[in-house]
Amino acid sequence: MAGNVFGQRFQITTWGESHGRAVGVVVDGLPAGLPFSDADIQKELDRRRPGQSEVSTPRSEADRVEILSGLFEGMSTGTPISMLVWNSDAKSSAYDAIKNTPRPGHADFTYLARYGMRDHRGGGRSSARETIGRVAGGALAKLLLSRFGIRISGHVLELGGIRAKTLSFEEIVENVEKTPVRCADLEAAKKMLEKVADIRQEGDSVGGVVEVIARGVPAGLGEPVFDRLDADLAKALMSIPAVKGFEIGAGFEAARLRGSEMNDPFRIEEGKITCSGNNAGGILGGISTGLDIVCRVAVKPTPSIGKLQQTVDLTSLKNAEITIKGRHDPTIPPRMVPVAESMVALVLADHMLRSGFINPRTLLE
Amino acid sequence: MAGNVFGQRFQITTWGESHGRAVGVVVDGLPAGLPFSDADIQKELDRRRPGQSEVSTPRSEADRVEILSGLFEGMSTGTPISMLVWNSDAKSSAYDAIKNTPRPGHADFTYLARYGMRDHRGGGRSSARETIGRVAGGALAKLLLSRFGIRISGHVLELGGIRAKTLSFEEIVENVEKTPVRCADLEAAKKMLEKVADIRQEGDSVGGVVEVIARGVPAGLGEPVFDRLDADLAKALMSIPAVKGFEIGAGFEAARLRGSEMNDPFRIEEGKITCSGNNAGGILGGISTGLDIVCRVAVKPTPSIGKLQQTVDLTSLKNAEITIKGRHDPTIPPRMVPVAESMVALVLADHMLRSGFINPRTLLE
Amino acid sequence: MAGNVFGQRFQITTWGESHGRAVGVVVDGLPAGLPFSDADIQKELDRRRPGQSEVSTPRSEADRVEILSGLFEGMSTGTPISMLVWNSDAKSSAYDAIKNTPRPGHADFTYLARYGMRDHRGGGRSSARETIGRVAGGALAKLLLSRFGIRISGHVLELGGIRAKTLSFEEIVENVEKTPVRCADLEAAKKMLEKVADIRQEGDSVGGVVEVIARGVPAGLGEPVFDRLDADLAKALMSIPAVKGFEIGAGFEAARLRGSEMNDPFRIEEGKITCSGNNAGGILGGISTGLDIVCRVAVKPTPSIGKLQQTVDLTSLKNAEITIKGRHDPTIPPRMVPVAESMVALVLADHMLRSGFINPRTLLE
Amino acid sequence: MAGNVFGQRFQITTWGESHGRAVGVVVDGLPAGLPFSDADIQKELDRRRPGQSEVSTPRSEADRVEILSGLFEGMSTGTPISMLVWNSDAKSSAYDAIKNTPRPGHADFTYLARYGMRDHRGGGRSSARETIGRVAGGALAKLLLSRFGIRISGHVLELGGIRAKTLSFEEIVENVEKTPVRCADLEAAKKMLEKVADIRQEGDSVGGVVEVIARGVPAGLGEPVFDRLDADLAKALMSIPAVKGFEIGAGFEAARLRGSEMNDPFRIEEGKITCSGNNAGGILGGISTGLDIVCRVAVKPTPSIGKLQQTVDLTSLKNAEITIKGRHDPTIPPRMVPVAESMVALVLADHMLRSGFINPRTLLE
Repeated sequence: MAGNVFGQRFQITTWGESHGRAVGVVVDGLPAGLPFSDADIQKELDRRRPGQSEVSTPRSEADRVEILSGLFEGMSTGTPISMLVWNSDAKSSAYDAIKNTPRPGHADFTYLARYGMRDHRGGGRSSARETIGRVAGGALAKLLLSRFGIRISGHVLELGGIRAKTLSFEEIVENVEKTPVRCADLEAAKKMLEKVADIRQEGDSVGGVVEVIARGVPAGLGEPVFDRLDADLAKALMSIPAVKGFEIGAGFEAARLRGSEMNDPFRIEEGKITCSGNNAGGILGGISTGLDIVCRVAVKPTPSIGKLQQTVDLTSLKNAEITIKGRHDPTIPPRMVPVAESMVALVLADHMLRSGFINPRTLLE
Repeated sequence: MAGNVFGQRFQITTWGESHGRAVGVVVDGLPAGLPFSDADIQKELDRRRPGQSEVSTPRSEADRVEILSGLFEGMSTGTPISMLVWNSDAKSSAYDAIKNTPRPGHADFTYLARYGMRDHRGGGRSSARETIGRVAGGALAKLLLSRFGIRISGHVLELGGIRAKTLSFEEIVENVEKTPVRCADLEAAKKMLEKVADIRQEGDSVGGVVEVIARGVPAGLGEPVFDRLDADLAKALMSIPAVKGFEIGAGFEAARLRGSEMNDPFRIEEGKITCSGNNAGGILGGISTGLDIVCRVAVKPTPSIGKLQQTVDLTSLKNAEITIKGRHDPTIPPRMVPVAESMVALVLADHMLRSGFINPRTLLE
Repeated sequence: MAGNVFGQRFQITTWGESHGRAVGVVVDGLPAGLPFSDADIQKELDRRRPGQSEVSTPRSEADRVEILSGLFEGMSTGTPISMLVWNSDAKSSAYDAIKNTPRPGHADFTYLARYGMRDHRGGGRSSARETIGRVAGGALAKLLLSRFGIRISGHVLELGGIRAKTLSFEEIVENVEKTPVRCADLEAAKKMLEKVADIRQEGDSVGGVVEVIARGVPAGLGEPVFDRLDADLAKALMSIPAVKGFEIGAGFEAARLRGSEMNDPFRIEEGKITCSGNNAGGILGGISTGLDIVCRVAVKPTPSIGKLQQTVDLTSLKNAEITIKGRHDPTIPPRMVPVAESMVALVLADHMLRSGFINPRTLLE
Repeated sequence: MAGNVFGQRFQITTWGESHGRAVGVVVDGLPAGLPFSDADIQKELDRRRPGQSEVSTPRSEADRVEILSGLFEGMSTGTPISMLVWNSDAKSSAYDAIKNTPRPGHADFTYLARYGMRDHRGGGRSSARETIGRVAGGALAKLLLSRFGIRISGHVLELGGIRAKTLSFEEIVENVEKTPVRCADLEAAKKMLEKVADIRQEGDSVGGVVEVIARGVPAGLGEPVFDRLDADLAKALMSIPAVKGFEIGAGFEAARLRGSEMNDPFRIEEGKITCSGNNAGGILGGISTGLDIVCRVAVKPTPSIGKLQQTVDLTSLKNAEITIKGRHDPTIPPRMVPVAESMVALVLADHMLRSGFINPRTLLE
């Protein structure tokens, strides 16, 4: 495939640039018979939207979704769902200054290397705006999964070096939207907010760690060998801009454990097989165990910073300097939470269909 | 796809169980005109083979590759290359004891959940033996890439808590095969060997970190959005048994840096654009920068340990105990090095073909 | 894939129902650097549009294309091109009468069998309106191919039993748009027009044969075994609504020839290898010979006819009768010509990219 | 994909050349729990094997299948099934004469155009021997489908201009193997045999038409738009060497019918919706109706003939002559029957899995 399509049976195709006319997504593979409306999509897009708080850019983008196909009398028809969001408030001229000086940490240079040209207005396809399509598609995936008892929740586990304490899934679900940093440990959240305010003052940025948990996934989901559930989750989450690392369960900590510590013992609970402990993160041999799927991503600090940086002039091929102006988030993880949840939902919906846990034709039987 | 196929244009299909008649691979997409022989494949298989040292299982498997198609007068014909390795020395009866008691940390339980049955002799498809097909396919990918100036080298960066010091690519290439732990820092390697000897004595196991570096990758490689080079590398490496985490460049450390620290400044060197620093790990916006691609995986400790573990009896659905007998590696990373290199090579060969850097029809023009 | 995506490297995803808000397409895989504008797309859509003549339905649909992404300063950027056409003039109420009585020869019944529900207004996804996306995508494929010397032209070879005489490629190109039946033999065209007028009078419909020729395809295009060029053309053309047969070169006539008649002898012409005769239709062993690619499809008569037909009542499960009202083309082949050309263009563009005849990254080198 | 893989969920990868060491197939996607043995595969391979009668080449190839993986205690495990057949009796030297003179009607020239080289011994990948993998994979697909009440039977409908009379499905099943031409109309079969004997005498060859019927396919199978069941059948059957045309139901005859003749009226029979007449060939809008799926392919005469033919010398680039020696079938359709059945079975098994009619994980629930 040409690189803008994700998934096999629950499949999204995203399109659109930050400064083009619109951005959007086509969702293919949603079975017929799922009731949904604009509001189900809008709710998730609103979580992703900038301009919500002091930790995100003050741009105000309405980001109203329009559903153009695949919906009939309030229900999915089984045919592709096309959704778009019109672009607005796009000040392209703000980008003229950087036309010839690639921004460090951005894809400006690599896009040029690949395409021999680039739309220099904003990040083009590598803009965070591309993730609108993922979140709109993910909203449908979440809705579908919820019919089968699967719930997905993400949160900011670490930001600017401040780590949240360990909380239960229900505590995370309850608290995560109470603070603009989307950290369910509200005390840590307060410190994170202060940290971000300081860093913004300095014209700098910070990174963090986002964790996503999926509860209710049946045991036996996942394909052998290459399309392991954890491998597909890794690809999905590593494809989000700014992500530099992925781990599942004990993750990198597993490299420092002994087998006797790492292995989750099996045990019988209420007549069913389960594990005591979840170092595996809900996946063994690429296939779900039935326990929570727990994965984390490392998010780099926003590359657009106000400080003076070294770069090059593409025309003269000489060293140059750059100071990026404009409105940018001082940190990415809070806004990434709904995007990361969406990617996890897309992978799970795809595998639920691939593995036959969901009838791919219709939910009406 | 059904899960045993990897890649789009350079594509491998692996097959075979640990205790079946053979294991193998079909490589599709290798252009016509690449000279190769059994020896090119065997060299890599020999690096993967167990029974080589005190850090691996004493099983001796000859693992001689047989090339069955796609080779004519010493050259690839552009048609599929089928390769197999016959199984031998398979003591299935050793596994009878564990037929009804799933091994903690293994895929025994999840395979049963998925398939409703399983071949209990060894790990079936989740056996490390499946990686023979990956290494045979990877050997061809490496050979193809070397024609285009791309070299790939992996090494053990950390084992049982012991970390190697930072070395140059050339130092790694030179030293990595000098010690059975495949750690290029020979002093650290000595400590790792001792650590593994101790842990084996205790009937336990340790994990570690494997790093793979690809040098010579042209700038502009990778697809936008979903099929980013780093996303595809993540999937490739996370699909190797026992891997629990992936990172590229600064990886999880990026979550703790500031933008002004993380961004690699661009600069002109010998008339060409490059970066000072490589926190990006050779990839920006999913597309290669031309610098070294540097990625790491977290490897969990071998789940098969000699210690008593808690499990369940599948027949009675009661709690049970298990002590795993047989010959098992006390640590996985040293033998994973060629497998991880292979997966990186497969991803790069695939993208070199997808992006048109290599003519997919023939090398003879 | 979920069934609404076509192609591997030049890939289109179509979406939209006849009576939804819009229909459209996302084109992925067009290299950067192709100059194009709305007019290039509109030109082809205008050929497909109904309401053009006495052989098509009198519905007047403006069908103005809107390009929403992937175009920057008059050139493709290498990123997805999203295009849509708003629906209008949709009299859904006209379809209420057929809600419970599936139309013979239509997909009403099979869609219900598949999805457990259906959008009964018009044909839903099986409507001819879905082909707008194919034609818009095909217009870009044609434009790309024309840069590499490939021209594609279709024409109506047979209609209502009237067969056109054999004409040269240049004669076809010159005459095909001169008559609303798109038959380049203008005398036969006149008879076809009379035939269609008669049949419309009777409330009946007729079928025909559409031929598509591609000139300028380089020798060596096509994949071995399954993705043969002719197999992919067959799939592409058989996926157009109302097509019941496909043939290449001598086609079904080949079944009645002897080997000594069928084989096209090779010969040298101007120092190059070519064939005298083209019974092969430009393809041997699934790979192009460099001669014209010539293929034909059998098109059934329009299933929507004014005559009384036998059907069933879906609610009472009793036999019933139906008389289809509304505006319908009395014959499909003339309007199918641009659709069939588009599908051929999509297959050739895909294979040109797959086989490395076109650089998939950019045309700007 | 690289062109040697077919199917999405029931997927085969074939490999091997006519004069290499072996030919084979990897079948991926067969659910766990299907009982089978070598004999199930061998039975179908024996039908495909040459040397069976006066209508096929006198080469005697044992063609014994070996199953190397995916089978445990007489049952599929859900993992890939690797099967191979060793090559033998390969007289490569017989092909030296044609090394520099491409055979008319063969892929010799186009393979050279594509790959810049070719294995001149036999047809390489375009050899009929490649179809061994298809038949072995198809045997498993048939076995799987038979569990769900689907039966597939092919027969020779026309050979050398002699047409069989119309027979019922049961008559075809009963008679088809009674005569080496695989024509169920035994009187026509006798004439065909005479025709073939004559033509062989002359050193020439004849073509024909093969029909395949699938009974018991549930209504609602097939994907909308591109992956229509008939489009996928067309691709599958057109990918068989020597096929030049495909039709479904009324096929090319549909082009000459009126709508009132072509449309199959719906009616209620035993409380269920069905059709009187099957001009549709069991598929409407790309989705199965529940009636027999009926499709036909046009098979060209064997290109290898004993008569003197015009060709070119690849070295001197001058016109040349060729007389093909060796053992060749004077007609292809009889041996194509099991191959065509296999391709139909592969498409149906794939769609049964894709559409959720078969649980892709296991048959053991």
